[in-house]
Amino acid sequence: MRKIELHRSISYLKDIMDRFYPIGADEKGGVTRLAYTEEEDLMHIELCRIGKEEGFLVQTDEVGNTFLSLEDYDEYYLVGSHLDSVVNGGRYDGVLGVAIGVLLLKEIKKEGLSIPLKVVAFRCEESSNFMKSTLGSGLITEGIREEDFNHLVSKIGVRLKDIFEDRGYNTSPEKIKGVKSYLELHIEQGRILENENIKIGIVDAIAGNIRLKVNIKGLAEHSGATPMNLRKDALCGASEIILGIEKIAQGDFKGSAVATVGVIDAYPGSVNVVPGEVEFSIDIRDRSNKSMEDLKLKIEEIINKVCNKRDLSFDIQFVSSSDAVVLDKELNNRLSNIATKLGIKHKIISSGAGHDAMKFANLTKTGMIFIPCKDGISHNPKEYAKVEDAVYGAMIILDYLKES
Amino acid sequence: MRKIELHRSISYLKDIMDRFYPIGADEKGGVTRLAYTEEEDLMHIELCRIGKEEGFLVQTDEVGNTFLSLEDYDEYYLVGSHLDSVVNGGRYDGVLGVAIGVLLLKEIKKEGLSIPLKVVAFRCEESSNFMKSTLGSGLITEGIREEDFNHLVSKIGVRLKDIFEDRGYNTSPEKIKGVKSYLELHIEQGRILENENIKIGIVDAIAGNIRLKVNIKGLAEHSGATPMNLRKDALCGASEIILGIEKIAQGDFKGSAVATVGVIDAYPGSVNVVPGEVEFSIDIRDRSNKSMEDLKLKIEEIINKVCNKRDLSFDIQFVSSSDAVVLDKELNNRLSNIATKLGIKHKIISSGAGHDAMKFANLTKTGMIFIPCKDGISHNPKEYAKVEDAVYGAMIILDYLKES
Repeated sequence: MRKIELHRSISYLKDIMDRFYPIGADEKGGVTRLAYTEEEDLMHIELCRIGKEEGFLVQTDEVGNTFLSLEDYDEYYLVGSHLDSVVNGGRYDGVLGVAIGVLLLKEIKKEGLSIPLKVVAFRCEESSNFMKSTLGSGLITEGIREEDFNHLVSKIGVRLKDIFEDRGYNTSPEKIKGVKSYLELHIEQGRILENENIKIGIVDAIAGNIRLKVNIKGLAEHSGATPMNLRKDALCGASEIILGIEKIAQGDFKGSAVATVGVIDAYPGSVNVVPGEVEFSIDIRDRSNKSMEDLKLKIEEIINKVCNKRDLSFDIQFVSSSDAVVLDKELNNRLSNIATKLGIKHKIISSGAGHDAMKFANLTKTGMIFIPCKDGISHNPKEYAKVEDAVYGAMIILDYLKES
Repeated sequence: MRKIELHRSISYLKDIMDRFYPIGADEKGGVTRLAYTEEEDLMHIELCRIGKEEGFLVQTDEVGNTFLSLEDYDEYYLVGSHLDSVVNGGRYDGVLGVAIGVLLLKEIKKEGLSIPLKVVAFRCEESSNFMKSTLGSGLITEGIREEDFNHLVSKIGVRLKDIFEDRGYNTSPEKIKGVKSYLELHIEQGRILENENIKIGIVDAIAGNIRLKVNIKGLAEHSGATPMNLRKDALCGASEIILGIEKIAQGDFKGSAVATVGVIDAYPGSVNVVPGEVEFSIDIRDRSNKSMEDLKLKIEEIINKVCNKRDLSFDIQFVSSSDAVVLDKELNNRLSNIATKLGIKHKIISSGAGHDAMKFANLTKTGMIFIPCKDGISHNPKEYAKVEDAVYGAMIILDYLKES
C-alpha cells in the first residue's frame, strides 16, 4: 500500500466504524450491544448492508453469525471477530476486527486478487448476557452439549434455547469446513503495546478462564435490633471472600493470573436489614490450565474457611470454563517477518482476554494481531484505539494472504 | 380480663391478623408492603374496613395515616404503630401494634368505658422505600423540611413529592394536637426477652440512627487483560470498607452500637469487567448521639484510608438521621407497676430499632411495650410472635388507660 492508499484505507475504515457508532449507544456514553438482543442484531444488519453496498456475497449461518466474501469457496481464509459488547462497553472491542475484514475484501476486489477470503462477524463473544463467551464461534467449531446450552439464560431471564427457537436457529449447527487459516485483529485491552510505543502485537497464547457463581446464606435480620456479635451477615462474609480472592490472585502466582468478582447482589437489599443472602460471580484466568485449577482450589478453600468462621452456608456453582490456548507458531513467525519487512514495530505478546480465535486453534492454523488501546482501557465507554493501527494490522494480514 | 375473656381476645386478635396476612405476600414467603405503594394502601383499606364493621369512627389525615376511635375527641390517648414492611419482611412488625389498638377499642366499647382513645396506623415507618423512616408519624409531629422532602425518591425512582401530589396529600400537614400520651406495642426484633423467657419489655430508650450513602469510583476494565497490580477495583475497595465498618461497630464501642451495609450495587455488573463503581448504604445506630457521631467519624476515616490506598475516589452522602430518644420515666414506672399487679413477667429494655414512638417523645408522654419474637428474627419471612403476648401487652395498656 502506498501512502495515498494508506490514507484512503484509514478514511474507509473510519467510515465503516462510524456506521456502527450509534448502535446500542447508552446514556453513560458507551454502547450496550448484548448478545442475541436487538442491539447485536442491528450491528449484523448494518454489516450486511455494508456488504451488499460493496457487492459482496452476504451469508448467515445457523446460529446468526454473518459472513461476507467476494464469492463462495470450498476452501478459504477466514478473518473476523465479533459485534456484541458488554454492558456500557466500548466501540472498538471486536468491531474493529470485523471492519478490517471488510477493508481487506475491498482491497482484494480493487486489486483483482484471487484470494479466497471470507470475513466473519461472530455472535455472542462476550459473556455479559449469558455468562458464556465465544458462543457464536464455539457452536460452529467444537459445539456445545445440549444440557449446557439449556442452562444459558440472559441477564433478564430469557432462555437462549427459546431465543434460538423463536429465530429458527440451530443449537447443534453444522461445523464450519474448509478454513485454511483463521486470523483475528483485536484491540489489546491491556497496556503493554501502548507503554512500549509498539503498533502491533503478535499473539502467541490466549489465557483460559473458569467461571463460578457463589451463593452465601446468612440470616436477614433487623439492622437496629441485632447486636453485632449475633449477626450472620452474608455481605460481610462475601466481602471477606472478595478480598481473599484478590489476595490469592495477587500474591500466590507468577503474575499472569487474575481473578475478578464483577457481579454482586445482596438480598433483601434494604438499608435497615442485615443482608441474609449474597450472590456473586468469580472469573479466574491464566495462561495455563493447571494454574487456573490451583487458583480455583485456593478460592474454594477461602470461601469454605470464611463461611465456617462466620456460620454462613454457601454453594459454589460451576458456570463455564475455557482452556488456555497456544496459537500457531509458524503463522506467528510469518506475521512477524511480514511486519519486519513492512517496517512496522511489533512484538510477541499473549492475551489475558479470551477471543473467538481460541475456538479455531484446534481446527486450523490460527493467529491474532493486537493493536494498542488507550490506557489499556476496554469494556468501558473510554475505550479508544487508532484506526491507523488497525490499517497497519490489515496490511500485515493482506501480505500474509498474498504470500499464501 | 378473666380467663374466658383472655381467650376471646386472643381469638379476636388472631382474626384481625389473619385479615392482613395475604396482603403483599411475596413468593419468598414473606410480605413486601413498601411505604406509599399499593400494598401499604391495601393494609390501610383493610384496617378501615375492620373499623367500619366494628362501627368505629374512621379518619385519614393529610399524609394518609389512618385513625380509628369510638368518637372524635379534643384530647385523647393515642395507641398504634405502622402497617408498611421492608422488602420480603415479616407479618408482625408494626401490624401487631395497630391490631391491639383495635382490640382495645373493641374492649372499651364492650365494657362501655368512657376512655378517649384513638388508634393510629402510620404510613412509611420503614426506610426501605424512601431511605427515610417514621415519615408518616414524623410529618404530623415535627414535620420535615421541604428541601429534604424533595429528595425522597422510591426504590423504583418515583419522587415522593409526585406521589403526594397525585394523592392530594400535604407535605406540610397540620401538626397533631391533643395527645395526652402515646403508647406503642411492638415486637422486640431482638432476642433478649425470648432468651430470658420474659413476656413483656418496657422500653426506656430508643436508639437513633445516621444513614449514609457511599459511592466508590475506580476504573471498569477488562477482567482478563488487566493485571491485578494495575486495577482500580471499586468492589475490592468497598469490601475492605465493609469489613472496616463491621470491625469499628464490633470493637470500638460499648456493645450497643451497630453499623450495617444493607444495600450494595456494583457497576457495570458484568462477569468479565472489573467493577468501576460501587454504591452502598450505611446504617449506624446507638443509644447516644455522641457515640453515633464518633462511629460516623471513624467510618469516614476508614473510607478515606481505603480509597487513598487503592487510588479510588469516593463520595459520602448524608441521607438522614434521627436522634436517640429517652422515653417517659413516670409512664414506664406506671406500666411496670401494672404488669407486676397483673402478674406478668417483664423487664426494662431499650430498643435498637427506631419506632414511630420516637416522634412523640418530645410532644407528649410516650411509652413502648415490647413482646418477644422468635429467635429475635425480624425483617424476615421467618418473623414470628405470639398473639397471646400481644394480648398481655394490651391488658397492661388497658389498665393504664383505665387508671388515667
